[in-house]
Amino acid sequence: MKVSFTLAEIEAIVQPARAQGATTETIRAIASLGSAQPGDITFLGNKRYKTAVGSSRASVVLLPLDFTGAPGPNQVHLFVENPSVALARMCSRLERELWPKPSPGIHPSACVSPAAKVPPSATVGPMCVVEAGAVLGERVHLEAGVFVGRGTEVGDDSWLMPGAVVCAECTLGRGVRLHPGVVIGADGFGYELVGGRHEKVPQVGTVVIGADVEIGSNSTVDRSRFETTAVGEGTKIDNLVQLGHNVVVGRHCLICAQVGIAGSVTVGDYVVIGGQCGIAGHITIGSGAKIAAKSGVKDDIAPKASVWGQPSMPLLLEQKIIILRSRLPELFKRVDALERKAGGKAG
Amino acid sequence: MKVSFTLAEIEAIVQPARAQGATTETIRAIASLGSAQPGDITFLGNKRYKTAVGSSRASVVLLPLDFTGAPGPNQVHLFVENPSVALARMCSRLERELWPKPSPGIHPSACVSPAAKVPPSATVGPMCVVEAGAVLGERVHLEAGVFVGRGTEVGDDSWLMPGAVVCAECTLGRGVRLHPGVVIGADGFGYELVGGRHEKVPQVGTVVIGADVEIGSNSTVDRSRFETTAVGEGTKIDNLVQLGHNVVVGRHCLICAQVGIAGSVTVGDYVVIGGQCGIAGHITIGSGAKIAAKSGVKDDIAPKASVWGQPSMPLLLEQKIIILRSRLPELFKRVDALERKAGGKAG
Amino acid sequence: MKVSFTLAEIEAIVQPARAQGATTETIRAIASLGSAQPGDITFLGNKRYKTAVGSSRASVVLLPLDFTGAPGPNQVHLFVENPSVALARMCSRLERELWPKPSPGIHPSACVSPAAKVPPSATVGPMCVVEAGAVLGERVHLEAGVFVGRGTEVGDDSWLMPGAVVCAECTLGRGVRLHPGVVIGADGFGYELVGGRHEKVPQVGTVVIGADVEIGSNSTVDRSRFETTAVGEGTKIDNLVQLGHNVVVGRHCLICAQVGIAGSVTVGDYVVIGGQCGIAGHITIGSGAKIAAKSGVKDDIAPKASVWGQPSMPLLLEQKIIILRSRLPELFKRVDALERKAGGKAG
Repeated sequence: MKVSFTLAEIEAIVQPARAQGATTETIRAIASLGSAQPGDITFLGNKRYKTAVGSSRASVVLLPLDFTGAPGPNQVHLFVENPSVALARMCSRLERELWPKPSPGIHPSACVSPAAKVPPSATVGPMCVVEAGAVLGERVHLEAGVFVGRGTEVGDDSWLMPGAVVCAECTLGRGVRLHPGVVIGADGFGYELVGGRHEKVPQVGTVVIGADVEIGSNSTVDRSRFETTAVGEGTKIDNLVQLGHNVVVGRHCLICAQVGIAGSVTVGDYVVIGGQCGIAGHITIGSGAKIAAKSGVKDDIAPKASVWGQPSMPLLLEQKIIILRSRLPELFKRVDALERKAGGKAG
Repeated sequence: MKVSFTLAEIEAIVQPARAQGATTETIRAIASLGSAQPGDITFLGNKRYKTAVGSSRASVVLLPLDFTGAPGPNQVHLFVENPSVALARMCSRLERELWPKPSPGIHPSACVSPAAKVPPSATVGPMCVVEAGAVLGERVHLEAGVFVGRGTEVGDDSWLMPGAVVCAECTLGRGVRLHPGVVIGADGFGYELVGGRHEKVPQVGTVVIGADVEIGSNSTVDRSRFETTAVGEGTKIDNLVQLGHNVVVGRHCLICAQVGIAGSVTVGDYVVIGGQCGIAGHITIGSGAKIAAKSGVKDDIAPKASVWGQPSMPLLLEQKIIILRSRLPELFKRVDALERKAGGKAG
Repeated sequence: MKVSFTLAEIEAIVQPARAQGATTETIRAIASLGSAQPGDITFLGNKRYKTAVGSSRASVVLLPLDFTGAPGPNQVHLFVENPSVALARMCSRLERELWPKPSPGIHPSACVSPAAKVPPSATVGPMCVVEAGAVLGERVHLEAGVFVGRGTEVGDDSWLMPGAVVCAECTLGRGVRLHPGVVIGADGFGYELVGGRHEKVPQVGTVVIGADVEIGSNSTVDRSRFETTAVGEGTKIDNLVQLGHNVVVGRHCLICAQVGIAGSVTVGDYVVIGGQCGIAGHITIGSGAKIAAKSGVKDDIAPKASVWGQPSMPLLLEQKIIILRSRLPELFKRVDALERKAGGKAG
């Protein structure tokens, strides 16, 4: 990020209760206490690290009101109620620089069907394709090369990044963010073996993505066989995740990278699924469940349960078994010894 | 899907032997027995669920000829030889509405090399790029933003969805479907360590995809080092699957989501590979083998074998071991007790 | 590949010390000893396979100087210092045919901001989008449909393949290759739960890709929270790999397909990570470490260590445990027998 803030500009953003020290630097980046260089702003987010403040080379340090200690040479301490919140304000400000609000309008290179609805407040970037019957909400932003298929609705304030694809007849709620390369609404994986060939089962359902859902780069959400693949409001999905047809994910879940959820799974609300987990088809994950990374889940999971393993088990049991598994060499030796003592292999 | 069918239109599609009841609804969607609402059509695909028919709120129910039971109020029973087949006919009809046959021709925004061959029956969508020497078959459909590289051949009736990429000098057979974001023919992953640097081994082979192969969103099939990466006729591949260079997959296989097959693996015909499996390089999977989800396969698999686990073992053995593994805490206690009884730790 | 070489052309490329035999074939492909057909060139790369030379149907065989044995009918033996190096020369030549050096210039369909810098030696393919402030180096090649965001720098001689996406304010070094569908610089996965909703933590850092890095199809590298996600010089990354925000990968690593590295992981130099491995967040992998396929790593790994398993353990221990695990049925029986001998279940 090529940004530059004067100390006065930073004070206007974070509104410190008081300041100490002085610097001749303009601020060009944010960094952690340990890696900050002159020209950086840093923060003490966790009091555990307060001893690191003294040796930080940052030009500006955001500190809690009760911090004691003098700034170094060419360094400013800014005292704020909550340094993490103050930093978040800096980040939001940077975010606006990084992703400035686009001018509304349709780029001349875009291909928008006359039978699509695009309000004057929406932005359609270069090389986008918006097919007949598609409806974009207010202030929708399609970055370059986005595809919106026939009859698809995109809710107000949604933001689709370069190369995202939403196939025909899907629905995105308000404030949805699709990162680059996301594919929504391609066919589910369904075949019937007839005479030695896999005959395609037509996938004529749809996908409904709730408000404030965010989906990471190159993730895929398949359309259902004939009903609805759904992701609930506020759920956040990381990169390279696969949701099969007829999957229904609840609200405010977190689904980490490279998770795969097979067809017709139901996931409750506030479920957390660690990276690279796989969920077998046609099961139910209760609300509030936590599934640790790399687990394979093949049976229903109770609400609020914590599980781990392949196949997954209660978390504490799996943790215990992992330790015992590593002691198998010892166990075999102990059984060998018992057998010797008992007079040869028992049978 | 915004569709609407009158009862007469539905009868024309499914051709019932007889009908019972009446409805004032037009039919706008397909749903399962349990979730159907007025305006939906549903079906009894499996006689196990016949008790659910009585309470279904669907407006139209497809039923086998021998079903007994009266329709509810504002509900029609349609009796057919095979309700699943009848439903499939409804789905096919819906599919035609969802994906109407495109008009042939090249969209003015597409960039087609004068040295490419595009027959008048083909459809090239907006923002497509077709390079010199590429050859499209009859009725090929490239949706928006598809890339077809130099010298690549696409068989008759193939359908490439938005953003699919087929690099230079590859061959797709007749009736191939590539879902959005698929990448065919990028370089295989091959290097030689020379003087502390990984020198690239040129990947100058090709990829040949057989007839009626379907490949899911964002899956990748690498070109071979100098021969051919191949996928046999009728094989179906789900989303986010990786096929490395020189992989040869047989005919009529099913490869589920997020599977990875390393370089130079040979897979027979009618192999089924569950989600998130990994197959190590240079091995052979016999025809008819079944590999359960999340397995890691590092040795050859015999034809028709069923395997599971990481590393994979015969399915029945792995199932047994999974149970015994969960009993490790008990086993350690039993060995502790035996040692106590035997007078202290044996040695 | 539709290529054709006369024997004289091949001799000019591989410069044999001597030749034996004669062929009327022109050479149209490279193949291994066993699968070669008339019209193919093959090579003896490993002396273990020398008995396969006699039965090879290749028209031209590259052989080491000390090979003894006469060519078959219509076959030529070319004797060279190192057949593998000679084959690599053939491959490089084929690579130039397969990916001919493009003519510099900006395709008329591309959308390049007047505020971007594109030198006359660069090639910008059809449908590309290059935003304001982006800087392309000398001889950069953007194939069709590439996106380069605001303020992003692409080093000299870098090659971005169809549909690759590099978001705003990232940096690619010299000679970087991004395969189709790669996404660099999308948001990291960071949220804070506030009042029952996952509030987005702005991701305002950047991504820096070192010189000579190659990244495979549809892989994703997220931008950092506020510092830098980095991949060191010479590292090679396969397809469908996920690197989370703030990950720092060293130089000359090999990262195989479908690996996932969670946020804030540090990976040293010359690390090799097998396919489908997962690395948990905030840990350090020492230089020269080797992580076998499908491992799950949740703790720091020492330099040069070899690990395997989920969770990963020292390689030799994991190999031993895998064998013992498969003997669990036997172990349970032995403990049963010991208990019977000891007079009933001990307790």
